[in-house]
Amino acid sequence: MSTETSLDRLKATLGPIHHLRDAAALLSWDQETYMPHGGGAIRAEQLATLQTLAHDQFVSPEIEALLASFLDLSTGTLHPEHRSALDEPSQALLRETWRDFSRAKKLPSTFVNELERECSLAQQVWVEARKTNDFQLFLPNLQRLVKLKRQEAEYLGYHDSPYNALLDLYEPGATVAQLRPLFATLRMELIRLLDHIRQSPVQPKAHLLSQAYDQTQQVDFGRLVLKHMGYDFQRGRLDLSAHPFTTSFHPTDVRVTTRVFETDLPSCLFSCIHEGGHGLYDQGLPTKHYGTPLAEPISLGIHESQSRLWENCVGRSRAFWRYFYPKLQEVFPAQLGEVPAEEFYLAINRVTPSFIRVEADELTYNLHIMVRFEIELDVIEGRLQVEDLPEVWNAKIQEYLGIVPPSDAEGVLQDVHWSLGAFGYFPTYTLGNLYAAMLFRQAQKDLPGLDQAIGQGNLLPLKGWLNDRVHRWGRQYTAAELLQRVTGQALTPAPFIQDLEQKFGNLYQFPTTSSTSHSR
Amino acid sequence: MSTETSLDRLKATLGPIHHLRDAAALLSWDQETYMPHGGGAIRAEQLATLQTLAHDQFVSPEIEALLASFLDLSTGTLHPEHRSALDEPSQALLRETWRDFSRAKKLPSTFVNELERECSLAQQVWVEARKTNDFQLFLPNLQRLVKLKRQEAEYLGYHDSPYNALLDLYEPGATVAQLRPLFATLRMELIRLLDHIRQSPVQPKAHLLSQAYDQTQQVDFGRLVLKHMGYDFQRGRLDLSAHPFTTSFHPTDVRVTTRVFETDLPSCLFSCIHEGGHGLYDQGLPTKHYGTPLAEPISLGIHESQSRLWENCVGRSRAFWRYFYPKLQEVFPAQLGEVPAEEFYLAINRVTPSFIRVEADELTYNLHIMVRFEIELDVIEGRLQVEDLPEVWNAKIQEYLGIVPPSDAEGVLQDVHWSLGAFGYFPTYTLGNLYAAMLFRQAQKDLPGLDQAIGQGNLLPLKGWLNDRVHRWGRQYTAAELLQRVTGQALTPAPFIQDLEQKFGNLYQFPTTSSTSHSR
Repeated sequence: MSTETSLDRLKATLGPIHHLRDAAALLSWDQETYMPHGGGAIRAEQLATLQTLAHDQFVSPEIEALLASFLDLSTGTLHPEHRSALDEPSQALLRETWRDFSRAKKLPSTFVNELERECSLAQQVWVEARKTNDFQLFLPNLQRLVKLKRQEAEYLGYHDSPYNALLDLYEPGATVAQLRPLFATLRMELIRLLDHIRQSPVQPKAHLLSQAYDQTQQVDFGRLVLKHMGYDFQRGRLDLSAHPFTTSFHPTDVRVTTRVFETDLPSCLFSCIHEGGHGLYDQGLPTKHYGTPLAEPISLGIHESQSRLWENCVGRSRAFWRYFYPKLQEVFPAQLGEVPAEEFYLAINRVTPSFIRVEADELTYNLHIMVRFEIELDVIEGRLQVEDLPEVWNAKIQEYLGIVPPSDAEGVLQDVHWSLGAFGYFPTYTLGNLYAAMLFRQAQKDLPGLDQAIGQGNLLPLKGWLNDRVHRWGRQYTAAELLQRVTGQALTPAPFIQDLEQKFGNLYQFPTTSSTSHSR
Repeated sequence: MSTETSLDRLKATLGPIHHLRDAAALLSWDQETYMPHGGGAIRAEQLATLQTLAHDQFVSPEIEALLASFLDLSTGTLHPEHRSALDEPSQALLRETWRDFSRAKKLPSTFVNELERECSLAQQVWVEARKTNDFQLFLPNLQRLVKLKRQEAEYLGYHDSPYNALLDLYEPGATVAQLRPLFATLRMELIRLLDHIRQSPVQPKAHLLSQAYDQTQQVDFGRLVLKHMGYDFQRGRLDLSAHPFTTSFHPTDVRVTTRVFETDLPSCLFSCIHEGGHGLYDQGLPTKHYGTPLAEPISLGIHESQSRLWENCVGRSRAFWRYFYPKLQEVFPAQLGEVPAEEFYLAINRVTPSFIRVEADELTYNLHIMVRFEIELDVIEGRLQVEDLPEVWNAKIQEYLGIVPPSDAEGVLQDVHWSLGAFGYFPTYTLGNLYAAMLFRQAQKDLPGLDQAIGQGNLLPLKGWLNDRVHRWGRQYTAAELLQRVTGQALTPAPFIQDLEQKFGNLYQFPTTSSTSHSR
């Protein structure tokens, strides 16, 4: 077979496997949005069948032979004759397919089946447990999942810590050894800023945001912002779910969800903007490469950089609200008609320790992540038993944030992730924040009129820039390569910290130490 | 392998195949309810992959070998040693699995893939064509589908007519030779009754039903009726779609849809009751046999008997409205508060030629079916070209009903079926009407207080009777066997005709010829 024919053959073989994964993703989306309660048990079976089939087809001898014709299966190194013959995208396609293949190959089909079934069931039990504030209900499921995830790490193999094997599933190349010092620096800086803020005389009027806001109007406003962001409703939709999320079956069908509470205006609003950022990434992946890694997101950290960039760098900026605040006042005249823009801006940027990660401010958000990182590291490394999680959780939240959750529903049960078997996922949120700060600075350099455009409600230049610099490349570059390519720098927490200091120094009126920070 | 082990093995192999079909059914449901418009092309690919995989796994050597260990693959006859060893359900399971297997075996995998993709695409084009009243838009898709369905008939093989091969997909054992005389008798009787009604001085006040009725309240009322019918919302849901339908992924997840128009009260109401009848059947199938024919409906005719029984024998009866009319008046006091029950009852039972099948009265409904039967027979037998369909449609509607559709949207484009490749499906509606009349008579015999219970809004005795006599058997009996078992009779149009004559003779005040008809 010629090089070209083999490559076409590989792509053609990957397509139907992706269809199975798409179908599984729809079954999961349905499970969290519309599935009747009674359908849960069979749904777990259906998902297990689909994912097992996708796995089995992916590790098939056919794909193995096709890959082997291009590269050394044990190292992933291209055979010499292909190094010059293949263009950069094709080389990346092979590199990343091999990466996925060699990982999948280590997992027995029966294990994939069991893990998928357990995840679907555990997610359903978690919904119930959170609703009824009953950790004990969820405990057996979580114990089984932890056992399976530790087993998975053993199958996959790792250096230093089994946690690295799981982390690598979400952020290829990231390690505990890299995260520990990064998080330590970040924590120190965040605590320093938090101390400034605690001593500040400025008191944002948070109660403005907890008046009664009609839920339908809230969702409609979220939809309006999504449209301005360039989220394409011909290729997407917005639904409600217990935990906001984004799912994609193809760049032409990318769905976001939000949740809405009458007395919590930021919840629905920032969930929409956040998930919209994710949605734009998925809608911006190249259709022509569908089914291959070139149409897949690089990593969860990069994915999260898109959501956090929109949520925080844009959605919590003065520029953004110059345009949108009058619109919001029109929708809620009784609640906001008399509230000055600056007061609203201060309220949505209030920094205060709180219980729920997804509702946390830009600053303390990362402390929530560190708590989770430390806990899941201990769980996966076997130092911490699952039954002790509530106690350890509460102790750590007190240590990091100085408050104690009043219930497990507002504590250890609040996040869906562990119920989905997603251990090693949380650190990508903080990585996303750091990436976002670096990327947004670069966008401001590359697009001189950006703040002004945002102030006029014109978010499309930014969307276009992200499409061009990030989305359209799929997995052609690694996260580190992309960052270097776009910003000329390696990952550093400095821009993120400087931006926080500049922003909150201004808002809370404390002296800033940094002179290089970039105004928003 | 022992007999029992082989049978367990067969069931275990069928399970995951059913999961694939469930997933495909969810993708189809989503396509008709929530899928964003742009996701249509990839959805067709995903469906084609799932159905092709399900097909390939079903005709696998493993299933072939398992079946061959029980029966003669060319005739389906059980090997002598199994005839006494296996109980009746197991024999039925093998008989029906063999039936499906030997049919599937005749279809090449590439054909299944192409047909599935074309159906998904054609369905989407049909939605657009109907909306814009543009038959030409739909024509190329329909032409391809007709070609594929004629090809399918050739693959499957048939006696007398290729149409028989397709009919058999929906109503096993039914033939053109059986339907022609049945429909001829029925037509003659229906025309006779219609003439009586045309000459009647009674004029139902149909305009009562086309006042403005709030759409949300209409859907809520539909939901109320569904709950009374015993439709389990823990194992189902009600959504909106262009064409009402029921879909099932498992007895624990059975979904119905309706449509709603502000100035057409019967449309949403009777769609809910109709689909609820289907839904009860699917929810009533035995969970323990999931994945096998023993947990599948017998035929579309029997399925339709359930929906029509609820819609007409119950939902258009005086007894039903004794309980529900006061409730409906409470919801719509301005529209119905002053309208006597009898006037309402007359209005919902008005017989009049109309354009839309699903909105047609009990009597003319079957004339709509005959038009479709004749047309699709001619198309599949090659006597009629697809491009001539609108003209032929209008001519036949005029011949049967004396009216001419003002547009193709209200004519040849009104039904989803052909866009789904469902040729041979329509006759099962009329068969369903005939089955329904026979079954409902039997229920009245078996449940002496039935009319009274219905009059008190207690629909559960009827639901329980249907669960017991029809639903729980799956495909253990053929349609003919079930009918014989439950009613002691073979299929006959007499009860249906007698019931219509009795009912409409009473309503339209014409003398009835039948003395055996049964009061409702």
